[in-house]
Amino acid sequence: MARNSSIQSGAPHQRSQMSNDTKLKIYLAQINPTVGDLDGNTQKILQQIKLANESGCDLVVFSEMTICGYPCEDLWQKKYFAIACQEKIFEIAKATKDYKCAILVGSPLIDLERKKEVMRNSVLLIEQGEVKKVINKKTLPNFGVFDEARYFAASQTLSTVEFRGLTLAILICEDMWDQFNSFLLREQVYDALIVLNASPYSAKKHQYRQKAAKNFAKNLVYVNQVGGHDSLVFDGSSFAMDAQGKIALQMKEFVEDSAIVEVEKSGKILPSAAIQDLGAETKRNYQACVLGLRDYVSKNGFKKVLLGMSGGIDSALVATIAVDALGKENVALYALPSRYSSDESMNDAKECAQNLGVNLEVISIEPMFEAAKFSFNQAGIDLIGLTQENLQSRIRGNILMALSNNSGALLLSTGNKSELATGYATIYGDMCGAFNPIKDLYKTQVYELSHLRSEVIPHNILTKEPTAELRPNQKDSDSLPDYAVLDKILFELIEEQKSIAEVAKNFDKTLVEKVAKLLHFSEYKRRQSCLGPKISDMDFSRDRRYPITNKFNK
Amino acid sequence: MARNSSIQSGAPHQRSQMSNDTKLKIYLAQINPTVGDLDGNTQKILQQIKLANESGCDLVVFSEMTICGYPCEDLWQKKYFAIACQEKIFEIAKATKDYKCAILVGSPLIDLERKKEVMRNSVLLIEQGEVKKVINKKTLPNFGVFDEARYFAASQTLSTVEFRGLTLAILICEDMWDQFNSFLLREQVYDALIVLNASPYSAKKHQYRQKAAKNFAKNLVYVNQVGGHDSLVFDGSSFAMDAQGKIALQMKEFVEDSAIVEVEKSGKILPSAAIQDLGAETKRNYQACVLGLRDYVSKNGFKKVLLGMSGGIDSALVATIAVDALGKENVALYALPSRYSSDESMNDAKECAQNLGVNLEVISIEPMFEAAKFSFNQAGIDLIGLTQENLQSRIRGNILMALSNNSGALLLSTGNKSELATGYATIYGDMCGAFNPIKDLYKTQVYELSHLRSEVIPHNILTKEPTAELRPNQKDSDSLPDYAVLDKILFELIEEQKSIAEVAKNFDKTLVEKVAKLLHFSEYKRRQSCLGPKISDMDFSRDRRYPITNKFNK
Repeated sequence: MARNSSIQSGAPHQRSQMSNDTKLKIYLAQINPTVGDLDGNTQKILQQIKLANESGCDLVVFSEMTICGYPCEDLWQKKYFAIACQEKIFEIAKATKDYKCAILVGSPLIDLERKKEVMRNSVLLIEQGEVKKVINKKTLPNFGVFDEARYFAASQTLSTVEFRGLTLAILICEDMWDQFNSFLLREQVYDALIVLNASPYSAKKHQYRQKAAKNFAKNLVYVNQVGGHDSLVFDGSSFAMDAQGKIALQMKEFVEDSAIVEVEKSGKILPSAAIQDLGAETKRNYQACVLGLRDYVSKNGFKKVLLGMSGGIDSALVATIAVDALGKENVALYALPSRYSSDESMNDAKECAQNLGVNLEVISIEPMFEAAKFSFNQAGIDLIGLTQENLQSRIRGNILMALSNNSGALLLSTGNKSELATGYATIYGDMCGAFNPIKDLYKTQVYELSHLRSEVIPHNILTKEPTAELRPNQKDSDSLPDYAVLDKILFELIEEQKSIAEVAKNFDKTLVEKVAKLLHFSEYKRRQSCLGPKISDMDFSRDRRYPITNKFNK
Repeated sequence: MARNSSIQSGAPHQRSQMSNDTKLKIYLAQINPTVGDLDGNTQKILQQIKLANESGCDLVVFSEMTICGYPCEDLWQKKYFAIACQEKIFEIAKATKDYKCAILVGSPLIDLERKKEVMRNSVLLIEQGEVKKVINKKTLPNFGVFDEARYFAASQTLSTVEFRGLTLAILICEDMWDQFNSFLLREQVYDALIVLNASPYSAKKHQYRQKAAKNFAKNLVYVNQVGGHDSLVFDGSSFAMDAQGKIALQMKEFVEDSAIVEVEKSGKILPSAAIQDLGAETKRNYQACVLGLRDYVSKNGFKKVLLGMSGGIDSALVATIAVDALGKENVALYALPSRYSSDESMNDAKECAQNLGVNLEVISIEPMFEAAKFSFNQAGIDLIGLTQENLQSRIRGNILMALSNNSGALLLSTGNKSELATGYATIYGDMCGAFNPIKDLYKTQVYELSHLRSEVIPHNILTKEPTAELRPNQKDSDSLPDYAVLDKILFELIEEQKSIAEVAKNFDKTLVEKVAKLLHFSEYKRRQSCLGPKISDMDFSRDRRYPITNKFNK
């Protein structure tokens, strides 16, 4: 605890080194850390500090929890994990002691509160080899995908820092979203606001962020983490805004990036040349799927993926995302036809693979399906229709997992959100897989994103009627309402958390009840599903947390 | 909101009806609610109130969140869910307006805080058809299996209630575990403490509870929920304690129960005749597995289960638990031999099934395994050894799931905690299943529990060396250290959350590193595993929450 207490109490307050320039230069470092990779993250941090210092900057600002990545979940409960992070802070301080450029970097920190050890979500101001100030997060998000109340003790105050003639208020992510904090800060005199973030992507998130920022009516620098982590994708999209709410800088989305803003001694942030256009929503969703997949694969030490191509739109889109994320040389595609597979499906699958520049291997499921029926027959067991359908899907799962085990490539699952919501997916069958890039896309969104890549996804796949081809002439519409209607009902039940009675004001009541029942009854499947990138405001991986045993369905 | 505000503000304070007796009679109602079953739970509550009233009691005390069951997870975020619960409170009040007996019952409640709607974890005192008092939970647990900070706003105060000449302090579960609350209550004058709980089972929980209760040094009535809910088992074990810490009443564990205690006007709780012996730890763990399984099956609307019998100890124990939980007529057992299955295993499986009074059906996996190898051969793919092993396990999974689909019986998974911790289990293979009764039992505990039922589990199963029989002469000890050692290392890494360096003080460092690596790398499998009852202080279903993408393994 010696080191810790020295971090917390800080060195005796010294007057900060004054810059000779009339303006301050702030470097925004939008990096992609990996959770738990303290060594790798520290190397990235040091590289950025070096660049910032060489550019004559006064301050380099990183994202929240820079040292360890975000979110670390129960790693944050382990004291030796926090100590390992703190050691990295000393390493950074030591390596930069001769730099003019100061550093704002995020880390978990052990602190004392009422003589009891607590964990903080902290930001450290490091200057000339010393930790000059520790800022602790005040507003801990504990809703949606966030569980910070499980790990951290909240700071009771917001604090400002005197830095080279400027008074800076430092906020950590959710601090900026808490209206009460903007009210508190209005009582304080400060020149500019610096916000360190790990703000996960969802389709409309960036506009929410800028709205929350405007609330403070202050010159503001916002640095966000970028990269995929399990079911979360961080889009970066860091920015700076002047006190009038005008964007002074807009950084890139979905890639690492850096930029410099100049700040006058009044706190005024000067307009930067670097104002990136952010993509339209569908394009952005597509990029989130690509980045989520790429980082899941690479950060877990894999290179290659494989998947089964049915000839339908879901697997065509997943294959396209995979090729864009990992390169065609790292994607293997398999067609696993049965007696019910149509020539049309096989041709569509082949054409799509060809357009992607990937060979399509064919392995028939018929021998295993026949052997299974033989074995059950020997045991005197007649298989009902649904069992036979699931069996085909599970034989495909088996074959794909064998290919995965044999080659070291991760299997991708290809079920969309509408399927997972209604249970129109076979557990241990088409739900097999390490990652599902389209898990949080409704079927109608699958079409939207597929149209973006219509140069590789064949026209016939974009226009034909969906079918699972598990029995003769099967169509999705035999069991499910039209996706355009289904998705709207699901959106109201899931994203808007409406009751059946409320949704039934807008749709046929019997239909709403049927959909709600499917959603309710398939909870057990979702609980065993693989991860996929969060796109919506209510994903199935971390946002929506339901009991399986639950008799309330109203 | 009219109803809500009438609950919260309460009727104008009236002097409580005084009892004519010199003693108060308190009825403890230890019921088994089902999450979300508001109608069913209310019926149970009304039955108990009627019995309490007929026994001349003054007050009937239920467990925490009686109306809706515990935990409801994100159902608690829905306002219409809370409103539905509140309607049940009015129903109860109305049905009991002519009773002498008053009621303490738990429910979520919508309240206003700083003009904003918040959700509370509340207890209502209902008397003569009116809500006389609302008590809100002050200490919201947000660690381990608990997430109450996600749902509820905490009360700022503890409150006492004047009731028929007694001053009662009412606590809700975690309120009793917060030392600060015992300190606060010492400042107040009150006669007895009533605690309403939903306190989940773990092996040593009951002794912790009694210790926490003693801390208050007060006459105390403790009513706990009983029953299985997803991965949690509530053991009941409600009790009463006098101010000297002496147990005045001990109710049954793992079953619904009711009892009456007499309380003098001084608050002194008189000793009751009903002091149940609680079982030894191993027996209690066994009962928790049985109840967890029984309630998962029945509360989800099923009756029957099936599982594969390998001849090993894990499936033998699961079959025994299943028969004890559901009756032998509701358990189907299957042997799924391959070329590697020994006669010994088949005989052991048969003998165990026979002892349980269940027929053992045999379905060979060879035809499907041969067909798979044929198909891969046709595609020019050689399957490596590990792939072949996993393929066998997954063919078994397929067959068992087909039997489940065909019969409507739930498939039980049979992997123990040591296997799940090390990844010594095949995802989509032996990990298939709706529920795993031994998920939170280390292999050494599987032996302990099996010895309890040695009249049905054959001696040879209890004594032979473990093997997965996926290749010739395979033994678990080929890949894993001896379970006696492995389990101790795992316990220190998982339950005690020690670092590798700390555990390596007690065991060979290379071995500890190997085990830690297995634990770290198999996170992705556990994320897709089915539920099983929590037995330990750190189960894999809700307690231990780790990222999959994580490079920290120290």
